Amino acid sequence: MSKVFPKVLERVVQNLARLPGLGEKSATRLALFLLGQPKEETQELAHSLLELVEKVRLCKRCFNFAEGEWCRFCLDPERNKSQICIVEDPAALSAIEESKAYKGLYHVLHGLLSPRDGLGPREIKIEALLERLEREPVEEILIALSPTVAGEATAAYLVECLKPYSVKVTRIACGIPMGMDIRYADQLTLKRALEARQRL
Amino acid sequence: MSKVFPKVLERVVQNLARLPGLGEKSATRLALFLLGQPKEETQELAHSLLELVEKVRLCKRCFNFAEGEWCRFCLDPERNKSQICIVEDPAALSAIEESKAYKGLYHVLHGLLSPRDGLGPREIKIEALLERLEREPVEEILIALSPTVAGEATAAYLVECLKPYSVKVTRIACGIPMGMDIRYADQLTLKRALEARQRL
Repeated sequence: MSKVFPKVLERVVQNLARLPGLGEKSATRLALFLLGQPKEETQELAHSLLELVEKVRLCKRCFNFAEGEWCRFCLDPERNKSQICIVEDPAALSAIEESKAYKGLYHVLHGLLSPRDGLGPREIKIEALLERLEREPVEEILIALSPTVAGEATAAYLVECLKPYSVKVTRIACGIPMGMDIRYADQLTLKRALEARQRL
Repeated sequence: MSKVFPKVLERVVQNLARLPGLGEKSATRLALFLLGQPKEETQELAHSLLELVEKVRLCKRCFNFAEGEWCRFCLDPERNKSQICIVEDPAALSAIEESKAYKGLYHVLHGLLSPRDGLGPREIKIEALLERLEREPVEEILIALSPTVAGEATAAYLVECLKPYSVKVTRIACGIPMGMDIRYADQLTLKRALEARQRL
């Protein structure tokens, strides 16, 4: 950004431009918008950001975001405590919740195995999962990782780790997305969908 | 947003979703990113926003953004004080500056005439412009408004207002954008470009 605007505005633009999906152009547009709206609204945004980093921490048990020690699922007596669904991150957890098809607990890995990025089993909370199995009455571990290369690798590793435990390990199904024309499905998805065919 | 995340996170999502170009999905993605990065970076963003609304005000003379009473152009002894370029808003001013083709002063309207939105000559700093002409040694007023319906209407109104003053009124040229194939130019642009043809 050229030095057309005051320094404080440039500081905001630089901070906004670091966010994913925002370049300098859109960061400038946002900053000008923030200056144009009533002062109170921009202050509310700023204060909510400060409160966010101050108050949100990870649930002691499942590593979902929480305001206290435990997240709302771990605190909820209605959730089925014999099931743990493994998700990559809180956004994936949110997607699963929106489906309204799962009523058990979660375990948030906060990443997938990626030796190149230094993400090993300890970094992504797999050890913490195994510790949970020692203490909790778990009957089923549902692996809900994306069927990507890293997701598949992490799932395979999890299956190995879970072998010594007397727990049922399941995985969300891969197949043709609802509403999709199978003529446009990729080979691998179609292969998976055929292999996982279900009796009607 | 469903109540999957802590309240403080939802508050941030709601605040972000009010920004232009951000829906709830991208606001959620941003909020999760902000939670995932080091605490200090989100705090820096928040503090920069607070500083922004605290410190930035409008230049007393030209209504550009300023940190003190005057903006950097009005303070700059190198700028040609006999020229005033009329722009719609600070973003337009920034675009003009980036062209490096103008070295005079500015006057920022902060809007275009729009009776429907209650924007009359007083709201958009036209009166303040006429007052400037009484006090300042202005020789040329360069109207740099976009050739849109509202921009054209505002420009026409300005020309009327400026008639009683002994000042040269000019307007940035309309024509074919550099690099554009004239076969794809719209009729009106082409008509303007023909009318404004220049001798070589």
